Amino acid sequence: MEGAKGNARDKDTVGDAVGVAPTSRRKFLAAAVGLTAAAAATPALGNPNNQPPNVADWTRTLGDGVATRPYGHPSQFEKEVVRRDVQWLTASRESSVSFTPLHELDGIITPNGLCFERHHSGIAEVDPADYRLMIHGLVDKPLLFTLDDLKRFPRVNKIYFLECAANSGMEWRGAQLNGCQYTHGMVHCVMYTGVPLKILLEEAGLKANAKWIMAEGGDAAAMNRSVPMAKALDDCLVAYRMNGEMLRPENGYPARLVVPGWEGNMWVKWLRRIKVGDEPWFTREETSKYTDLLETGKARQFTWVMDAKSVITSPSPQVPKLGKGFTVVSGLAWSGRGTVKRVDVSLDGGRNWREARIDGPVFDKACVRFYYEFDWNGEPLLLQSRAMDSTGYVQPSKGDLRKLRGVNSIYHNNGIQTWHVKADGEVENVEVG
Amino acid sequence: MEGAKGNARDKDTVGDAVGVAPTSRRKFLAAAVGLTAAAAATPALGNPNNQPPNVADWTRTLGDGVATRPYGHPSQFEKEVVRRDVQWLTASRESSVSFTPLHELDGIITPNGLCFERHHSGIAEVDPADYRLMIHGLVDKPLLFTLDDLKRFPRVNKIYFLECAANSGMEWRGAQLNGCQYTHGMVHCVMYTGVPLKILLEEAGLKANAKWIMAEGGDAAAMNRSVPMAKALDDCLVAYRMNGEMLRPENGYPARLVVPGWEGNMWVKWLRRIKVGDEPWFTREETSKYTDLLETGKARQFTWVMDAKSVITSPSPQVPKLGKGFTVVSGLAWSGRGTVKRVDVSLDGGRNWREARIDGPVFDKACVRFYYEFDWNGEPLLLQSRAMDSTGYVQPSKGDLRKLRGVNSIYHNNGIQTWHVKADGEVENVEVG
Repeated sequence: MEGAKGNARDKDTVGDAVGVAPTSRRKFLAAAVGLTAAAAATPALGNPNNQPPNVADWTRTLGDGVATRPYGHPSQFEKEVVRRDVQWLTASRESSVSFTPLHELDGIITPNGLCFERHHSGIAEVDPADYRLMIHGLVDKPLLFTLDDLKRFPRVNKIYFLECAANSGMEWRGAQLNGCQYTHGMVHCVMYTGVPLKILLEEAGLKANAKWIMAEGGDAAAMNRSVPMAKALDDCLVAYRMNGEMLRPENGYPARLVVPGWEGNMWVKWLRRIKVGDEPWFTREETSKYTDLLETGKARQFTWVMDAKSVITSPSPQVPKLGKGFTVVSGLAWSGRGTVKRVDVSLDGGRNWREARIDGPVFDKACVRFYYEFDWNGEPLLLQSRAMDSTGYVQPSKGDLRKLRGVNSIYHNNGIQTWHVKADGEVENVEVG
Repeated sequence: MEGAKGNARDKDTVGDAVGVAPTSRRKFLAAAVGLTAAAAATPALGNPNNQPPNVADWTRTLGDGVATRPYGHPSQFEKEVVRRDVQWLTASRESSVSFTPLHELDGIITPNGLCFERHHSGIAEVDPADYRLMIHGLVDKPLLFTLDDLKRFPRVNKIYFLECAANSGMEWRGAQLNGCQYTHGMVHCVMYTGVPLKILLEEAGLKANAKWIMAEGGDAAAMNRSVPMAKALDDCLVAYRMNGEMLRPENGYPARLVVPGWEGNMWVKWLRRIKVGDEPWFTREETSKYTDLLETGKARQFTWVMDAKSVITSPSPQVPKLGKGFTVVSGLAWSGRGTVKRVDVSLDGGRNWREARIDGPVFDKACVRFYYEFDWNGEPLLLQSRAMDSTGYVQPSKGDLRKLRGVNSIYHNNGIQTWHVKADGEVENVEVG
């Protein structure tokens, strides 16, 4: 430790004496990392025989052996990277939400331990041996499946985002929450493994008037939603795995409905029943909830699709202050209507837009990661991102969204988010335009 | 519970009375799931007002609230899904290996908590504040990076497999270990986020005679390996994230080298130093270890690339006995030379081959998931899979591999694996041909 701190001191002392390379990017980088030939020429690391003072403790000591943690967990130094809830938001934590720490993540895969939660009666702790899924209603042959039954059907692997319809809901009336974990953290993206629902429905045999399904959960809320048959037969899954392993209890263990691109509330967890009918059920969750009250007093209903959306995850209010120099702006974008085709970033609150670099895989109805790299000179910024999807749809400003829908809505706020980067590098949630 | 067990009894009682649908596949499925109209017509689920006896406990009780586990973990019913080590294999657990439970996974993403481990002096517990990476040797300007420095460079996201060169090593002289966790579990596949090594090397400036790098770890073994410059400049990364979150301690937290498609030993963890030179260093790990002794007494050296390989993960010895009827054979395939183009499956020890269905994304130097579905009539099987990659290379039989390399090798056994499925559904590791 002593030695490593010694390195840090060397760097602090000599950091400004850097020889600057000719190209622009190299200049930014050299300034950012504060490197010097002098610092590195100091006997630094890798001399275990002499044991110079800057050999770290962890290089002097034998570490823990294999399988000390048969199921591993993150470093002790990452203990702030957790789901968080907002206790004033709901009356109880059993019917509430916790948020994915988007500001602490990169790439497009959300680790299972950090996927946001939304429960209506807490986490159902289902014993897989006693799990059953029933399919009945307007079918030729009602069916009852065990979990082992489901695992004997042909299965597929798909990476999809899952976004709660209420994500960013608290921002409808203005910037409220200071961090993308809270403004946008009701989204995650994992690889699901499951049976196409179409196969199960065809196994039961659909009657001619079968136009809708009702999916019901095994939790104490028996949460249920209607899904039109066209979607059920298109790309819905009965999934039992996420990122390779079995679903987590808070994400519907042992099986949930996957409704790609549509609001998370429809992805019924702890799935115990699918009833086939000829009209929707108008359940609580699609009448008094998950509808969008307009200024006219009318409400939009069955607004299932999650429109294209994006957010800059770093810099953002919860991460350390931004330092001058070469800067990587990182963010997530997604669309429930197809693939993300392009993401633009603005440094000046939407006056000028520059195309971001989308990096990593681009899948239908999945998150994509975008980056925008630039040299920050310390001038205040109004950072924004906007996503465009494969249908040509462009993510709107919050102002444009409010013109269309008013400010009574809770759900489906996909407006452009603005982060104000101050001269000292502090970042806050603000409204622009 | 009572109720769910009631359902199970219903199903057992009436399971054979099934009306069989006309198509072949539907027949298999109906037999597998043992479904009946009678069973489902019994009042089953979803009647909370009457509380029939078959409403499960978890539907009668309020569950845990959100963020009860700020960082989540798997269901209590999945506690057998863990990394395992083989204690007779090594003298100490600090220099040893634990194996990924491949038989309990699906898709292509390995959850971070289940990625196999291979340590030489245990897990280095690195404090990220004191972490440094030095680049020196044949460079214009030696450099010293903090972790924050590395995070300010442009970054990329890539899904790669990582396989230990010793994976399947104990099978060289014949089938020994009864389960794919042990025969093939030194492989995992995650999405890495990191800086292309090329960017860092160019930042330091390579001298004209810079032909090799030496990567050294910060663990007590100071594990080090030589990598030719062409590979270093091609696709190597200094990665700090896996599946979105920071690397796990056992996988090199906070930064490791990623050497796509090449043996895992070169993916130096807890990376603290990269020295640039004009020839290899001939370190312990590339002379007395990680070389392949042939029958002639000569040894193959610098056998970096992991050739195409595959394994059937289910059915396999560690999973429950196979039942008759419609069966999904599931497996993993990968190649260090490019993409997996095709996987074939044999039910009869390699006499007849049928093309498997590759499902999910196919990336360069990443695992792919394959399936082969068929109706098992209870006749014994000799299950095999063989991978073909984008170079045209075909995974060899163990016999062909031994003809070329003898039986002194430990490393680079990519021979075809055989599982014997007995008439009662039990599966064991056997040798064929």
